[in-house]
Amino acid sequence: MKSDKPEKSEKSEKSDKSKESDKSEKSDNPGKSDKPEKSEKSARAAKAWSEDPTPLLRAGAGFTLLGSDASATPGFDGSKSDGAASLIADAPEMGLLQEKFFANSLHGDERSILLVLQGMDSSGKGGIVRHVVGLVDPQGVQHASFKKPTPEELEHDFLWRIRKQLPTPGHIGVFDRSHYEDVLAGRVLELAAPEVIEERYRQINDFESELVAHGTTVIKVMLNISADEQKARLAERLERPDKYWKFSPDDIDSRLLWNPYQAAYQAVFEKTSTPTAPWHVVPANRKWYARLAVQRLLLDALRSLGQSWPSADFDIDEQKRRLTAT
Amino acid sequence: MKSDKPEKSEKSEKSDKSKESDKSEKSDNPGKSDKPEKSEKSARAAKAWSEDPTPLLRAGAGFTLLGSDASATPGFDGSKSDGAASLIADAPEMGLLQEKFFANSLHGDERSILLVLQGMDSSGKGGIVRHVVGLVDPQGVQHASFKKPTPEELEHDFLWRIRKQLPTPGHIGVFDRSHYEDVLAGRVLELAAPEVIEERYRQINDFESELVAHGTTVIKVMLNISADEQKARLAERLERPDKYWKFSPDDIDSRLLWNPYQAAYQAVFEKTSTPTAPWHVVPANRKWYARLAVQRLLLDALRSLGQSWPSADFDIDEQKRRLTAT
Repeated sequence: MKSDKPEKSEKSEKSDKSKESDKSEKSDNPGKSDKPEKSEKSARAAKAWSEDPTPLLRAGAGFTLLGSDASATPGFDGSKSDGAASLIADAPEMGLLQEKFFANSLHGDERSILLVLQGMDSSGKGGIVRHVVGLVDPQGVQHASFKKPTPEELEHDFLWRIRKQLPTPGHIGVFDRSHYEDVLAGRVLELAAPEVIEERYRQINDFESELVAHGTTVIKVMLNISADEQKARLAERLERPDKYWKFSPDDIDSRLLWNPYQAAYQAVFEKTSTPTAPWHVVPANRKWYARLAVQRLLLDALRSLGQSWPSADFDIDEQKRRLTAT
Repeated sequence: MKSDKPEKSEKSEKSDKSKESDKSEKSDNPGKSDKPEKSEKSARAAKAWSEDPTPLLRAGAGFTLLGSDASATPGFDGSKSDGAASLIADAPEMGLLQEKFFANSLHGDERSILLVLQGMDSSGKGGIVRHVVGLVDPQGVQHASFKKPTPEELEHDFLWRIRKQLPTPGHIGVFDRSHYEDVLAGRVLELAAPEVIEERYRQINDFESELVAHGTTVIKVMLNISADEQKARLAERLERPDKYWKFSPDDIDSRLLWNPYQAAYQAVFEKTSTPTAPWHVVPANRKWYARLAVQRLLLDALRSLGQSWPSADFDIDEQKRRLTAT
């Protein structure tokens, strides 16, 4: 069992009890940017990204999960509170870009965004949804959680259930686990023969190329926690009655297979981190950093769409006259 | 055309430009209730509900839409800022109850909540989703928007597309428009014969009784704006390039049928406001009040579930021992 000690574990972060305060932290009055102190705060937070994190997080050639520090904060020099401030400072832009994205889909733009979240149990996938995806209008979000496949799902190709949940135009699809489980649990638990697993990597690459070709921005994120951090988080779930529901004995079964899972993730990065749909390995021992990093990836994707407000597809003056006459 | 002047129109509320600040207003640091000033603020906001609004909003026997004041704030004596404070003050409880609701669904509780939103164009249905439903974890929300039926949908019974979008256990389903369009637009535009429309009311009541019997709390909300308020809101959409996308010439076509639509709504209330699935007519000229009222209806529904955290379905000590051994 890997036993790296995170420099500063967040195990004592009462993430559930403090959910409400987290919910509040995300929006320390953004939008009121006319107030000078807010502008200064935003500027300070913005400065804390010392470097564009996207290339730093990308699992490119030569990347090894083993050599990746789960407690690091790549590209971000600031503290936890700087991180929280930065998340808040960027929320208005995120909301605005998401609204433009949605608006354009009503005018024929068929592009979509798919955020794929993977990670060991307790790595914080749910927290990303709540605290990052939760910053935008729920109307623009399509969330799907993939559990152990049902008998019906098992009767089909492994991508069958995935295809049914792909985001529609103008929406941010969020996959909490995904088709990658079929080459992660699938491989570690030997649910399929090695040659079948091998074939799946190719199928996944074809599938994702197809998505990208049809205008889906695919953002793949692995939330990387250390074994020690997981131990602390699972222990907390066993201590607190309001967290029992998040725990399953299966989590320990999977934990006992920590190294095989890490190896399966490594294989995933080597075989499926393509130029069009690269993997990002986000250090996640510090929840605030993971949230900030995923927000940044989403923001990059939204900004890259380069959208303006759609122009009117009706005669404005004519409609004004009609309205006035009512 | 009805021409009641709302005492204080919100037409000049720059609702889109200020979306970000709205997003922030919703969470003026809830959860930090250890700070005395916050507790006082919450207490003050709570006091502003002078009366339980639920019975006041219910469209019971004798209710008339014509006699309903779209600018009123039933049960709430406070100002707009009191309303905003109250929305914020109740957000933590809403989030916590939603999480319990979701947690229990993983332990066999099959209950769900369905929020049906109806109202004329620009009545604020989208704002309710963004500002009220957006207060809870997106993982717990299933949103469906019903537009003009597609040719495929028209080949089926009018409830076919509705059934496909019903919330799964532990989720809050939100319908932006619904099966009621088939007795609203359906009736006003004469898309079906009168006897077919008549039959639909009965089908709807049967359908909703079935939902309730299977554990779905059905919250039906009509956002009631005045004709003048709608005129102001549509005019704003025609003035602002960032709002053009929200406007359709159809909106004016519908506006020209204001009175027939009001009559169709009145018929809906008379025929489908049942004891198990009553209608609530929420005055919506003041967006802040409509949001607060719908939050209250959702909170009532969540509170009524009377849920605790699910107990552990595993041996806690055994799992602690297993975890320690890793």
